[in-house]
Amino acid sequence: MSKLQAVVLAGGSGTRFWPAGRRLRPKQLLPLAHGVTLLRATVERVRPLCGDDAIWIATNAELAAAVRAELPELPAERIVVEPEARDTAPCAALAAAVIDAARPGAAIAMLPSDHLIAPDARFRELLARGAALCADDETLVTFGIKPSFAATGYGWIEPGARVDAREPRASRVTRFREKPDRATAEAFLRSGTMLWNSGMFVWTAQALLAAMTVTAPQLAAAAHAMRAAAARGDRQALDAAFRTAPKGSIDFAVMERAPRVTVVEAELAWNDIGSFAALAAVVAPDADGNVLSLHAGARAVALDAHDCVVHGEGPGLVALLGVEGLVVVRMGDALLVCAKDRAEDVKKLHARLRDCGHEDVL
Amino acid sequence: MSKLQAVVLAGGSGTRFWPAGRRLRPKQLLPLAHGVTLLRATVERVRPLCGDDAIWIATNAELAAAVRAELPELPAERIVVEPEARDTAPCAALAAAVIDAARPGAAIAMLPSDHLIAPDARFRELLARGAALCADDETLVTFGIKPSFAATGYGWIEPGARVDAREPRASRVTRFREKPDRATAEAFLRSGTMLWNSGMFVWTAQALLAAMTVTAPQLAAAAHAMRAAAARGDRQALDAAFRTAPKGSIDFAVMERAPRVTVVEAELAWNDIGSFAALAAVVAPDADGNVLSLHAGARAVALDAHDCVVHGEGPGLVALLGVEGLVVVRMGDALLVCAKDRAEDVKKLHARLRDCGHEDVL
Repeated sequence: MSKLQAVVLAGGSGTRFWPAGRRLRPKQLLPLAHGVTLLRATVERVRPLCGDDAIWIATNAELAAAVRAELPELPAERIVVEPEARDTAPCAALAAAVIDAARPGAAIAMLPSDHLIAPDARFRELLARGAALCADDETLVTFGIKPSFAATGYGWIEPGARVDAREPRASRVTRFREKPDRATAEAFLRSGTMLWNSGMFVWTAQALLAAMTVTAPQLAAAAHAMRAAAARGDRQALDAAFRTAPKGSIDFAVMERAPRVTVVEAELAWNDIGSFAALAAVVAPDADGNVLSLHAGARAVALDAHDCVVHGEGPGLVALLGVEGLVVVRMGDALLVCAKDRAEDVKKLHARLRDCGHEDVL
Repeated sequence: MSKLQAVVLAGGSGTRFWPAGRRLRPKQLLPLAHGVTLLRATVERVRPLCGDDAIWIATNAELAAAVRAELPELPAERIVVEPEARDTAPCAALAAAVIDAARPGAAIAMLPSDHLIAPDARFRELLARGAALCADDETLVTFGIKPSFAATGYGWIEPGARVDAREPRASRVTRFREKPDRATAEAFLRSGTMLWNSGMFVWTAQALLAAMTVTAPQLAAAAHAMRAAAARGDRQALDAAFRTAPKGSIDFAVMERAPRVTVVEAELAWNDIGSFAALAAVVAPDADGNVLSLHAGARAVALDAHDCVVHGEGPGLVALLGVEGLVVVRMGDALLVCAKDRAEDVKKLHARLRDCGHEDVL
């Protein structure tokens, strides 16, 4: 088997990080990973395992320039550009086709670019274990995070029988459960066995294609066409085949119904940083509980302020006086002042800004 | 008697309007008067009464350039520059000396530059009445505002006997009371007769000098020397004499103890805009109680926000989401997010910023 290839998915848009996140600068391009971008951190996390020449990025045409600027060391042929956004299932097929054409038979790790993960060394161990588990060209491997709360916004995975007596943390997946209700999520947490779906996968192109043939024949047909086009190096045919793939997530189109899915229980500190309120997981709060995420010359001063999150980029100063439980984000020409428990609704605010004709700051 | 001269005091520094207010841009130079600066509004308010050539500004060397830029129509000789800050008593003496040298015997109205006053026409009537009342070259005239709450931060004036049966609103002052405690302020309000000291005065230079001779001999000596220097046009001697004047406020040094002070009851909408929280008096709140004071391209969008004050200057957007009772000020490189009931403490924050080495944003 060829060396493990890693493809980092950097096509996400996301509006919950406005105004730091903008149309051409989504979450994965924000310096939220201890001062570097989440994308850069994801790449550096896998580099010691895969090596320089096995790192790929999947993104879209709009973000390709920003991705290249962030990762100038990456050769152009390893940036896989989706001709349009069709969600993760077509993206997985495209990446598998392109990578398998260049590195036939390799295990391919597909990794989100906008999550925080630690420790890096353990992550690499898990990835290597996953690569070994999919070497049969039949198994799709996913990684399940030990849950720390009853998350209703995540997908959950129920592990079943162990795949191998020597692999105590690898099990066949019994079922996937997307975004459960509160009571179900609490039962999942209590079970002690249910895991969060991390959205990280390892498979070979052949295993993925085989699974698609069973779970999503139309997608499989498109994937076949993509693979043939990639093998010929025919970019136009590749894009055309991509456009015939039905839109949908890889979880729904493949994972939830694939016959042979193994979950590796990942004991990792994992955070998908759903909003700025989650920055406390990245930056240690000060004595007053304030989280100051300051970059590129940004400064902050807090007087009688508690439990606030400040994210600032670029020269300038944010001063807090006598406030509590706020998220304050200062970036260029825009400023957000938001109640911490409303941070998820920045999405709604984003829509409002668009509707009110403020596209220039989006 | 010569025509009424108006001298507008534009030397105040003030730190409670940071970050809109900066060292070289104090409150009177902020666009808080319906889009124009308070200084400009003060000048325009008196112009129809005094005429173009009777308007003077007293300021300090540091602010002179900014004042000239704001009032380019004003000839240099009508900007009286204090060689150093010594509070309002020396300033009153200096202004009186310079103006009386140019317009001997004129009534001089001394007006703060940083208050909101309406309606303008009634204000001018009151000023004209005040000028008439000080024509005896003995009387110092002050203006008392009908109080609307039990202010502990203002000075109060107790009016006594009427000065003239035909002037129902003009009385001899019985006493001044600076910043009373809560109970006293409430008693003052209940009295129905006590008035707020507006800090606006009319007198002739001769009357002022005579009063100083009684209440503050050292100040009077300095004032005499200033008058002589101004009459000779000797700027250096004028400055030297100014520096010999004891520091202090005109209220304490003169008004509180002068033998002949008349207060004109001023039925005016008057607001000294003590902090950004007071902007609701200037800008009508929207349906959610938010006051949006936006200038020079500033924009704001509020979603589920209530009872906030936003002051923005320059291109850029402030977005509020799910917050209440905040003051948000965005100006250049600095941003303030402050609880509305802590707006007075911006002063303290200002000191903290200075102590922490952030002078560049002050």
